[in-house]
Amino acid sequence: MTTTIKGSERLGVIFSELEELYPQLVDIRRDLHMNPELSFEEVETAKKIAAFLEKEGIPHKTGVGGNGVVGYIKGGKPGKTIALRADFDALPIPDEKNVPYKSKVEGVSHACGHDIHTASLLGVAKILHAHREEIHGNVVLLHQHAEEMAPGGAQAMVKDGCLEGVDEVYGAHVHSNVDVGQMELNEGYIHAAADTFYITIQGKGGHGAEPHDTIDSIALGSQLVVDLQQIVSRRVDPLKSTLVSVGSFHSGGAPNVIADTAKISGTVRTYDEDVRDQVEELFKQICKAAEVKTGAVIKLHYDRGFPSLYNHPQETAYAKKIAQMVLGEENVLEMAPTMGAEDFAYFVKNVPGVFYNVGGRNPEIDAIYPHHHPKFDVDERSIINIAKIYMAIALNSQNA
Amino acid sequence: MTTTIKGSERLGVIFSELEELYPQLVDIRRDLHMNPELSFEEVETAKKIAAFLEKEGIPHKTGVGGNGVVGYIKGGKPGKTIALRADFDALPIPDEKNVPYKSKVEGVSHACGHDIHTASLLGVAKILHAHREEIHGNVVLLHQHAEEMAPGGAQAMVKDGCLEGVDEVYGAHVHSNVDVGQMELNEGYIHAAADTFYITIQGKGGHGAEPHDTIDSIALGSQLVVDLQQIVSRRVDPLKSTLVSVGSFHSGGAPNVIADTAKISGTVRTYDEDVRDQVEELFKQICKAAEVKTGAVIKLHYDRGFPSLYNHPQETAYAKKIAQMVLGEENVLEMAPTMGAEDFAYFVKNVPGVFYNVGGRNPEIDAIYPHHHPKFDVDERSIINIAKIYMAIALNSQNA
Amino acid sequence: MTTTIKGSERLGVIFSELEELYPQLVDIRRDLHMNPELSFEEVETAKKIAAFLEKEGIPHKTGVGGNGVVGYIKGGKPGKTIALRADFDALPIPDEKNVPYKSKVEGVSHACGHDIHTASLLGVAKILHAHREEIHGNVVLLHQHAEEMAPGGAQAMVKDGCLEGVDEVYGAHVHSNVDVGQMELNEGYIHAAADTFYITIQGKGGHGAEPHDTIDSIALGSQLVVDLQQIVSRRVDPLKSTLVSVGSFHSGGAPNVIADTAKISGTVRTYDEDVRDQVEELFKQICKAAEVKTGAVIKLHYDRGFPSLYNHPQETAYAKKIAQMVLGEENVLEMAPTMGAEDFAYFVKNVPGVFYNVGGRNPEIDAIYPHHHPKFDVDERSIINIAKIYMAIALNSQNA
Amino acid sequence: MTTTIKGSERLGVIFSELEELYPQLVDIRRDLHMNPELSFEEVETAKKIAAFLEKEGIPHKTGVGGNGVVGYIKGGKPGKTIALRADFDALPIPDEKNVPYKSKVEGVSHACGHDIHTASLLGVAKILHAHREEIHGNVVLLHQHAEEMAPGGAQAMVKDGCLEGVDEVYGAHVHSNVDVGQMELNEGYIHAAADTFYITIQGKGGHGAEPHDTIDSIALGSQLVVDLQQIVSRRVDPLKSTLVSVGSFHSGGAPNVIADTAKISGTVRTYDEDVRDQVEELFKQICKAAEVKTGAVIKLHYDRGFPSLYNHPQETAYAKKIAQMVLGEENVLEMAPTMGAEDFAYFVKNVPGVFYNVGGRNPEIDAIYPHHHPKFDVDERSIINIAKIYMAIALNSQNA
Repeated sequence: MTTTIKGSERLGVIFSELEELYPQLVDIRRDLHMNPELSFEEVETAKKIAAFLEKEGIPHKTGVGGNGVVGYIKGGKPGKTIALRADFDALPIPDEKNVPYKSKVEGVSHACGHDIHTASLLGVAKILHAHREEIHGNVVLLHQHAEEMAPGGAQAMVKDGCLEGVDEVYGAHVHSNVDVGQMELNEGYIHAAADTFYITIQGKGGHGAEPHDTIDSIALGSQLVVDLQQIVSRRVDPLKSTLVSVGSFHSGGAPNVIADTAKISGTVRTYDEDVRDQVEELFKQICKAAEVKTGAVIKLHYDRGFPSLYNHPQETAYAKKIAQMVLGEENVLEMAPTMGAEDFAYFVKNVPGVFYNVGGRNPEIDAIYPHHHPKFDVDERSIINIAKIYMAIALNSQNA
Repeated sequence: MTTTIKGSERLGVIFSELEELYPQLVDIRRDLHMNPELSFEEVETAKKIAAFLEKEGIPHKTGVGGNGVVGYIKGGKPGKTIALRADFDALPIPDEKNVPYKSKVEGVSHACGHDIHTASLLGVAKILHAHREEIHGNVVLLHQHAEEMAPGGAQAMVKDGCLEGVDEVYGAHVHSNVDVGQMELNEGYIHAAADTFYITIQGKGGHGAEPHDTIDSIALGSQLVVDLQQIVSRRVDPLKSTLVSVGSFHSGGAPNVIADTAKISGTVRTYDEDVRDQVEELFKQICKAAEVKTGAVIKLHYDRGFPSLYNHPQETAYAKKIAQMVLGEENVLEMAPTMGAEDFAYFVKNVPGVFYNVGGRNPEIDAIYPHHHPKFDVDERSIINIAKIYMAIALNSQNA
Repeated sequence: MTTTIKGSERLGVIFSELEELYPQLVDIRRDLHMNPELSFEEVETAKKIAAFLEKEGIPHKTGVGGNGVVGYIKGGKPGKTIALRADFDALPIPDEKNVPYKSKVEGVSHACGHDIHTASLLGVAKILHAHREEIHGNVVLLHQHAEEMAPGGAQAMVKDGCLEGVDEVYGAHVHSNVDVGQMELNEGYIHAAADTFYITIQGKGGHGAEPHDTIDSIALGSQLVVDLQQIVSRRVDPLKSTLVSVGSFHSGGAPNVIADTAKISGTVRTYDEDVRDQVEELFKQICKAAEVKTGAVIKLHYDRGFPSLYNHPQETAYAKKIAQMVLGEENVLEMAPTMGAEDFAYFVKNVPGVFYNVGGRNPEIDAIYPHHHPKFDVDERSIINIAKIYMAIALNSQNA
Repeated sequence: MTTTIKGSERLGVIFSELEELYPQLVDIRRDLHMNPELSFEEVETAKKIAAFLEKEGIPHKTGVGGNGVVGYIKGGKPGKTIALRADFDALPIPDEKNVPYKSKVEGVSHACGHDIHTASLLGVAKILHAHREEIHGNVVLLHQHAEEMAPGGAQAMVKDGCLEGVDEVYGAHVHSNVDVGQMELNEGYIHAAADTFYITIQGKGGHGAEPHDTIDSIALGSQLVVDLQQIVSRRVDPLKSTLVSVGSFHSGGAPNVIADTAKISGTVRTYDEDVRDQVEELFKQICKAAEVKTGAVIKLHYDRGFPSLYNHPQETAYAKKIAQMVLGEENVLEMAPTMGAEDFAYFVKNVPGVFYNVGGRNPEIDAIYPHHHPKFDVDERSIINIAKIYMAIALNSQNA
């Protein structure tokens, strides 16, 4: 694990070229920012990406697994094939910032920074393509659509072959909680699998004063919510972090009428795939038991979302080393796992890889709001930092 | 208790006059049926009642406790003052019957038979007034508005003095579950007090994957609904029938967001006034405990509705005897208490009295639907039966 | 219902004879009091009863349904056959009174007054037998064993034919809450059916830190107790008083070990026989559901105890009239129903009848303690009052 | 982190001496095994340890924090002071093995391998003492009593100064789940903090049929157990593994009597110290809320047990390197964290250090049973492996 950075002598040159490109990348980012497109509807964004690659002469495929675009850089020397990912969809969140590049689309914005990712990877594409003859191995550019909405674009792109021949995959996410100039990463599970459940209790309505002639869907639904707590507290391994949250409960109207139907929905988060299966099974058992207890008919719709995201140890160690070299050792931090979900998980289920955060926070320019906040923004220098790490990863891949 | 019906010799004459009046009473009933007015809005109905009394020369007051109309028949001989009640408001229920006298008001109908009561009591008024010189004691005619909607008209009419000088009060309700020609009554509590509660849980919303940074209003609300069950099962005297039903539970939106607010409402039914107080106190305790447990802020709005309705033993026995004489012994049935509410309760809280059902059911004319049903109707001969019992009660009152 | 007491002219004579007999009846009572026998073990008491009847020449059977003794008085004139009941078992309660007739049996006492009942009925037997030629109808003397312990003696005596030919049955209970000289009764249900449940949860024990490898019988048992509350609060008719109380919950040992077994027991009280069946069915459902939910194995043992006791209206009215005549109208009170159980219920399930309380309370002699209290005692004049009512009931039975 | 093992040239000699000592160490181990002593009662064992050190001329203190014995080896050359720990108490578990060295004390046995630890550390003591002039730094030998029972011996020994001057502390545990010849370790939290709670609910007992006159401690206790589930499911960070298990619930007797008291106990496991404080606070809140809800008086006794055990990264890395050198790289495995507790935690709260498992499993000699099993045993070669790693750690400490 004592990798020496073979390509380091060349990085100086390449990083200079990136700095020259910066104004253009900022323009690209701002154009995307002003013209955000929702998940699965990002047709124009995909066209812009493809047009950029086309103009640079970079071989690419469009319509990969939907709106995905995949570029290919074939190195002049033998080596691994490294995939780098940038997602490009936006969110149904209004843009409340006062900036010249504010979203022009009512109620839609790049409130998660995918515009930054895209600009950055296009910069990487242009520069590495120019230097392709000197490169060991190949680089695959994964421009992914629809990260924000299940079932996501990653799974479809994988099915469509985007990882064919790929040895390792790397994913960077700009983060407004991490200072610009820093990054954070961690091996192991860092994002949870996110599943969604929808329960419909069909009881039997009636007069509020005659409960014995009804099946009270609110009384039953409330017991069900209480029962669901024991999945986490009693049924799964306490060392395998698991979460069950009920997000909505809707039933009934008049105070003096017993409601015949209750609708309950929520989210389940797990890291371990066995626990994930176990929890779905427990939902079935608990719903079945509630039917047996009361005679109600309960419909459970259990939607598997993104799987948990596992950062492979070797690739994590490699990316850490690269990041320490690029940003300085003191600027590479430990990343806490979260119960949030990310469909990069599908890529690392298929080939080894790592997903990490790159800082975009800068209080001086008010880039302090959390992701998905209407005032979310990041320091655009994060474009450079993401790109530098990506390029260093690619250039040194034969050592990984 | 071996009352002989002093006035019985005269009843034959009077009952014949009632039969002659029947077509006119049916016209009155049908006019009201076609022009129903909602609780507290029954201005035209009140005018019609007053106009009838005016035309007959019967002294009366209008605007009693709102839209109430009270008529007075002063008997020529000494005796008790007996009040007879007929309510006259309608319901926000569409009329789905195919009859010539169908409601002309969209979405409003006399689906509880108050039109029958009114027609009946007007008939009673006319006939007793004509015979007033022969009558022992006085008769007070209580034409009550707003029985269907809390706080009801009865309480306001009592406050406005409608029971001044009254010795006993009697109330008849036509019923579609009892065959025309029969009636039912019972001493003791026959209708429950009906209170309504509204609970607002102010928790603290947040990301579904971070429950520790929230106060989960659905988890808490569900526990609260489960806790409320113990009021009936553990806290009140099992021999004093009590009911707590939650009618609505609304909270949250997206499955993956923890809801910050939950709104819960329901109804409480009690017979015993002490238990009624106890239950309200228990609601306060349970809500307070939920605050202590979680830090949520819980607002409890507890609305006292109609009190329980107590049929006084002596008046019940008297009415039973009268009804047996009028309808035949075999046509007077036992009445089961219900957990439903009726604001006649306010009258019998102030003077002794009894409330009973008079049959209106007749399958031959499709008068079989439950009260508040869009197809509800009754046999109009119930007008006669109600009136006969009322008149016999009034004429024999000195024996009661 | 305007019964005139045909036999009243003769009651004066008979009541005088009873007063003469009083010292002997007190002796009988005190002998029984000093020699109490537990339910199903009351062999000597039964012998004493039979010996008394034998000596008086009263035909009787012994060993009826166990230790029961039944005497027969055949009246000289035609009429109904009336059964009168006195139970004679004692309780496993120490006698803590300071009286000469204190129990001689360690830990056993007549703390419920069955000795009074027995002395009284023997007095009735002797006097009525002496006057048998003048009596209309017959009298059956039901000396019943084992009232205090399920399954009780009544059921077995009925099966053994003790009610053959009986038209009506009457039962008196001395009561320390009612003043001596008074009595109380009420028609309808006055005692509940009392059933007992025993639930054994077989979960799967294990280390307290590894709940996922266990089936936690305490967590499950606690949910079960909470679920059982909804039987009363949601599942049965709120107008049909029902009670479910858990009396014991035992599970586990060390705080850090998950218990594999939990044992839960409790009592169910109902008036309505359909509700009684429904509750047992709901227990089965709730236990089954808990199995489905967790994989535990749950054994439910549901023991039917005494049924509810229903006082028939006609016999109640008759007994009331008799009691008013014997004790004075002002001394006959209304009796509140209780959720306690009494196996006289089996008699009135088979023939019409009534069960009532006769006062024994007297603060002057410290006869103030509740039944089953170690200091329980009653005024012995209650022997006379019980006997008088019994005799008047029997003598006037042809009018009932 | 590329430490070269300075002392490695000397290890060959020292390991040979250890092999020569092996038969004596086995004797020591077997003597302890046959004469086990329970926690806080291990007086004779302490004497044996002190006698061994005395005989070897090793300076030591006895009675450290109770029965603890601490030996001191002063190296001839400057360097760090390294503490090595061996616990020596036994368990209240019968010995069911068929071996010549079976426990002679009825119901007490070394079913957790502390005899192995002790024999091993005495071997280390003898050899290192002999070579003390060549050693860099000092070695402190921590012979700890009472690991198996809270509050444990470690805390008291620390208070008594056993870590004064110590730079690092190392602890080995033989493990029957790890093959002899292997070891496992991991950085970070590997054992949870273990706290114990005792809840006494003082309700108000009464007749099972009169719940309204009682405070039902079983109904309340059951709700409490259900409420406690939400600590883990809703209140703490799902990423910080936490466990609440109820181990016992005892209340009531007769099925038809409402119990006035319920006693509940259980265990809480946490890694994070803040979460540990939060959980205790939540217990207080939940108990307080239950009081507010019902009027019961609830006594919560919350016993802090061993804290969580944190393996410091640097010392873990060092011990791993040493173990790889001693046992071969392939024999050093990843150790999964557990929710079990270990009072070595107190040592690493005070100075940096690491706790790890050393294999003792050997199916050929039936050494396959889990710890605390009556047939638990381990391969005695584990004495050698523990000692080798300890000695290598001590000798190379200046590089750590």
